[in-house]
Amino acid sequence: MEKNKSIKRAAVVLSGCGVYDGSEIHEAVITLLALLRNGIDVEFFAPNIASSDCVNHIDGSAETPRNVLIESARIARGNITPLSTFDAENFDMILFPGGFGAAKNLCTFAYDGANCVVEESVKKAILSMYEAGKKLGFICIAPVIAAKVISNGVKITIGNDAGTAEAINAMGGQHVECTADSFVQDGNVFSTPAYMLAENAAVVEVGVSKMVSKMSE
Amino acid sequence: MEKNKSIKRAAVVLSGCGVYDGSEIHEAVITLLALLRNGIDVEFFAPNIASSDCVNHIDGSAETPRNVLIESARIARGNITPLSTFDAENFDMILFPGGFGAAKNLCTFAYDGANCVVEESVKKAILSMYEAGKKLGFICIAPVIAAKVISNGVKITIGNDAGTAEAINAMGGQHVECTADSFVQDGNVFSTPAYMLAENAAVVEVGVSKMVSKMSE
Repeated sequence: MEKNKSIKRAAVVLSGCGVYDGSEIHEAVITLLALLRNGIDVEFFAPNIASSDCVNHIDGSAETPRNVLIESARIARGNITPLSTFDAENFDMILFPGGFGAAKNLCTFAYDGANCVVEESVKKAILSMYEAGKKLGFICIAPVIAAKVISNGVKITIGNDAGTAEAINAMGGQHVECTADSFVQDGNVFSTPAYMLAENAAVVEVGVSKMVSKMSE
Repeated sequence: MEKNKSIKRAAVVLSGCGVYDGSEIHEAVITLLALLRNGIDVEFFAPNIASSDCVNHIDGSAETPRNVLIESARIARGNITPLSTFDAENFDMILFPGGFGAAKNLCTFAYDGANCVVEESVKKAILSMYEAGKKLGFICIAPVIAAKVISNGVKITIGNDAGTAEAINAMGGQHVECTADSFVQDGNVFSTPAYMLAENAAVVEVGVSKMVSKMSE
């Protein structure tokens, strides 16, 4: 059955379920809500890989690593697709919520900083959307992935953390300071600080909603 | 330091992290957002118990049960308190998002229907708030807990599912049909169908936001 061409479609890429080892849950749900409010269909994706680690979210202790796709499915209510099957042709935009999963599972930034390696299906999805002139949105710490993959002086923000900003510049991006209630746009590449700076979920919602509304125009 | 008495405080009780064995994540985050938008401080609670089960959210297969408090902490970004320490005196309202966790971990409704047993700290929290004349909000399937604990003909909704409505009436509640974009109020007891009926998170947000706004008056 042919897709309704008048309805825009967004891919949201998750990295597990929980701020310390996966997707930041509030950011993921707020992204979903913002897209739905703009009348955009949403499909969730995640890499089908073992998580880099599993963190007890109360005491920070290490637990047995889980599977990124299976844990991400908790946020997606079971409706999720392996990112390896992503096809840019089917989507108008792609968005990456933050959380440590973005820096531990989608790439190795949390361990390797500017020398990080980006997971293969993540890299391919970003490049295919970028080269097709489609929109890309990066939230919280996820913009480091854009810096690594797109490079080329792309202007992005993670708020104002000096060390992360420096790493972004070292990877060939160009960090721009920004508050949590706003976003940065460089052509088709959008970013917003979210919990890199936001004091609570309501502030995350302001920045993400503004960014998604602009991406939906 | 004394709490600011002019700011209302809400307790949100979680039951794990994921619709099939814990709290429905969208409902939990939407509840948080609605409370914050009304200027209400939020504190998360969950029982410190083993989860009844753990469900792979892609294929439905059984995994090793986890701990309800520790998994709920993923939604709460680590800021969560064992429900056994809950004191009604510190809160103006208490809310229960849905998800199977509400019917598997907070009580045994998913297994025992009208003959369900309610977890002790959940029962105590509900009764202490109810008896103190404070507000209680039940979302999705969570109203079955209100029917069991409060009983006494309390009017609540889970939407329009005939079997669940019958069980609510059998437990001494009084089921009222309601759509996902609305809520039911009976004195200080509020309920809204959310994902019992909602086609997506945006619809959940409409009903929960209306309910929370009314609870915040």
